[in-house]
Amino acid sequence: MEVSIIAIGDELLIGQVVDTNSGNLAKLMAPFGWQVKQVEVVADNAEAIKAAIDRAMMSTDVVLTTGGLGPTKDDITKPLLCKYFGGELVRDPEVTGNIEEIFRKRGIKMNTLTADQALVPTSCRVIQNRVGTAPIMWFERDGKVLVSMPGVPFETLQMFESAIMPQLLEKFPNEEAIEHRTVIVANVTESALAIQLDQWERALPENFHLAYLPKPGIIRLRLDGHGTDGALLKKEIDRLHAELSEIVKDNVIAIHDATIGEALLEHARGARLTVATAESCTGGAIASQLTAIAGCSDVYVGGVVAYSNELKHTALGVDMAVIERYGAVSSEVAAQMAQGVAKLTGADVAVATTGIAGPTGATGERRLPDGLVIEAKPVGTVWFGVYAKGNLMTFCRCFPGTRDRVIDRAATTALTALIKAIKAN
Amino acid sequence: MEVSIIAIGDELLIGQVVDTNSGNLAKLMAPFGWQVKQVEVVADNAEAIKAAIDRAMMSTDVVLTTGGLGPTKDDITKPLLCKYFGGELVRDPEVTGNIEEIFRKRGIKMNTLTADQALVPTSCRVIQNRVGTAPIMWFERDGKVLVSMPGVPFETLQMFESAIMPQLLEKFPNEEAIEHRTVIVANVTESALAIQLDQWERALPENFHLAYLPKPGIIRLRLDGHGTDGALLKKEIDRLHAELSEIVKDNVIAIHDATIGEALLEHARGARLTVATAESCTGGAIASQLTAIAGCSDVYVGGVVAYSNELKHTALGVDMAVIERYGAVSSEVAAQMAQGVAKLTGADVAVATTGIAGPTGATGERRLPDGLVIEAKPVGTVWFGVYAKGNLMTFCRCFPGTRDRVIDRAATTALTALIKAIKAN
Repeated sequence: MEVSIIAIGDELLIGQVVDTNSGNLAKLMAPFGWQVKQVEVVADNAEAIKAAIDRAMMSTDVVLTTGGLGPTKDDITKPLLCKYFGGELVRDPEVTGNIEEIFRKRGIKMNTLTADQALVPTSCRVIQNRVGTAPIMWFERDGKVLVSMPGVPFETLQMFESAIMPQLLEKFPNEEAIEHRTVIVANVTESALAIQLDQWERALPENFHLAYLPKPGIIRLRLDGHGTDGALLKKEIDRLHAELSEIVKDNVIAIHDATIGEALLEHARGARLTVATAESCTGGAIASQLTAIAGCSDVYVGGVVAYSNELKHTALGVDMAVIERYGAVSSEVAAQMAQGVAKLTGADVAVATTGIAGPTGATGERRLPDGLVIEAKPVGTVWFGVYAKGNLMTFCRCFPGTRDRVIDRAATTALTALIKAIKAN
Repeated sequence: MEVSIIAIGDELLIGQVVDTNSGNLAKLMAPFGWQVKQVEVVADNAEAIKAAIDRAMMSTDVVLTTGGLGPTKDDITKPLLCKYFGGELVRDPEVTGNIEEIFRKRGIKMNTLTADQALVPTSCRVIQNRVGTAPIMWFERDGKVLVSMPGVPFETLQMFESAIMPQLLEKFPNEEAIEHRTVIVANVTESALAIQLDQWERALPENFHLAYLPKPGIIRLRLDGHGTDGALLKKEIDRLHAELSEIVKDNVIAIHDATIGEALLEHARGARLTVATAESCTGGAIASQLTAIAGCSDVYVGGVVAYSNELKHTALGVDMAVIERYGAVSSEVAAQMAQGVAKLTGADVAVATTGIAGPTGATGERRLPDGLVIEAKPVGTVWFGVYAKGNLMTFCRCFPGTRDRVIDRAATTALTALIKAIKAN
């Protein structure tokens, strides 16, 4: 089944809010083989919304719209849908009850604008929004379905998964089985990987497809297959998945879909090791990737965001004389940070980062009084320290790009290095 | 000037990668009054790309495409553009030189797939990509311009700002001046704000518009104005901006466009105060929002991600008996964490978080042996501790939604509370 998504809202077109809904809806539909054919992002403008709906209703049997349903005057989607599908706007008592209940729970007084969210076209079937105030509206015309959903991501995703997708599957049952398998690799370029896999990929059966999904520092390989015999398809894709994992085994981080943080937690859990972090330039980015994962606490004990030199010393025991001599961005400091946080937390393995995220902070070559030359450190220079059960190693990378890119790459590199250390342990 | 954006790539439609480019391009064009009319996200599929280009070229004078230019076989945009605008694919020696240079710098061996990135249609003018390997292609037809850019966000944004936008402005000079002003507020609902501003908003001159841009925990108010007399427009919008700031002053966080982290750094810098963080449930999210901002180090000294109870004790001096008695998610622990991190770091102000991000971890009501009743803590419960120059206060919130939403709301609430504490200081 092919689906069109229309994301509505001025805030999406001016870049104040990023449309994450469309991608997340696609992810929720993928296991059922439902594909997003196209996404259109349009302004809170009746003409633009109408044109997008026209095109979408022409192009696919299912159309999902997100946004344009808030209580403020920017929002014009509902009257437009009413005009488009016919009928008139009436107050839905169940929606009113839901809104009142939500406001009561939050202890906020309800006002006219919010109360008017209960107005819905008579031409739609309302799906009650259990997690927010904007009602979800299901329209049908000529066997096609348009579902209008709110723009708030958590409302949309929760209601889509629990109520909307099941009803869509009831209306449009699947004819074919579909399967996906993922392999995640690191430390290899996309083109080198493509060459390595070229022959295998060419020999893939026609009902299978391999997609390269690169992100900074890692590449996701996603194998998709479809077929009428679900059991056979499963067997076949598992065989191909094993082959693929074997070909790229030197660079594998995970053989299923996972974030790099999830992959680390799995490796650490498997080896029964606890993990700590000492972050200077990444400033909490590694910690926050790990703690974003539910249930991380059996592996991740925590760490220090040692942004100032003083805190590197007081919390992690880094020698101030070493900072003075080699600079905070150095192999010596990275090593002491990793060792220090392992000592502080009692963790089995630990990673430390200290670098120059930029855009300023680059240092030139320095010659110390005793003749030692400290090399220049351009923006993007990051030293990593990895501690693993008594062993300590450090390495340096220089990442190109903006501050957020340097931080992101450094966090990914730190997690990859931890995985490597755990595998070697 | 109105602009269409076409974001190309299977990875965008399946939700593996979120299209952040379109929003960021919109932000870069906004100061010039250029508006994104619509964004289409399409698959790596020749027919879909062609249809999107047809529509976009019909609808606006400027069309920007991102993605579809990588070295692997998913990518088909370039041959399609060649067919669409005519000519043939030829090897561009300058692009080849650029790719060779990049690979030399990174110390990676170049392969055939990458070398073929230097193939460009004769019908385009090449804009050299200074930060990546995929060339940027400028096509013209009937006075309209299509610029094909790579999908990698940092390449696209850097090249757009430095090279593409200046050339677009040369081709299509602006006729009208445009101005924006922003006010950011917290602790108020969108609908309450709309009612508060209703009268003022109705009285706005016709060439001004107010947009509500809510994010969890804060609302951005963006005032846009346009006019032929730039100086007059500036004067007028500054007057309206001052009026707006005054009306909502009780809830103001910033009177210009800023993240909540930036707003905190400004307030702290203005008050000459240093800041530290002690995070349990937010797990580094606060630290990482602050360290994402260049130049944060004069204000933010760092902190502790005290995920385990042991680390709350060893790094922050939280009393284990207090954790045992009241639970880690409690007013008492939040207070000790805030005080502890201020002591450890010497910071003037500090915030601490300890909560249940979920999806599991809720606790029921407990009665202690001495009769004290510890109330139930549902998922989403977060205790905050705020330390400000010797003063200590705590408060509790219960956030709805998923784990990432709880963490995000808790981080925003912590930053808002710090701003409030600094303002009161």
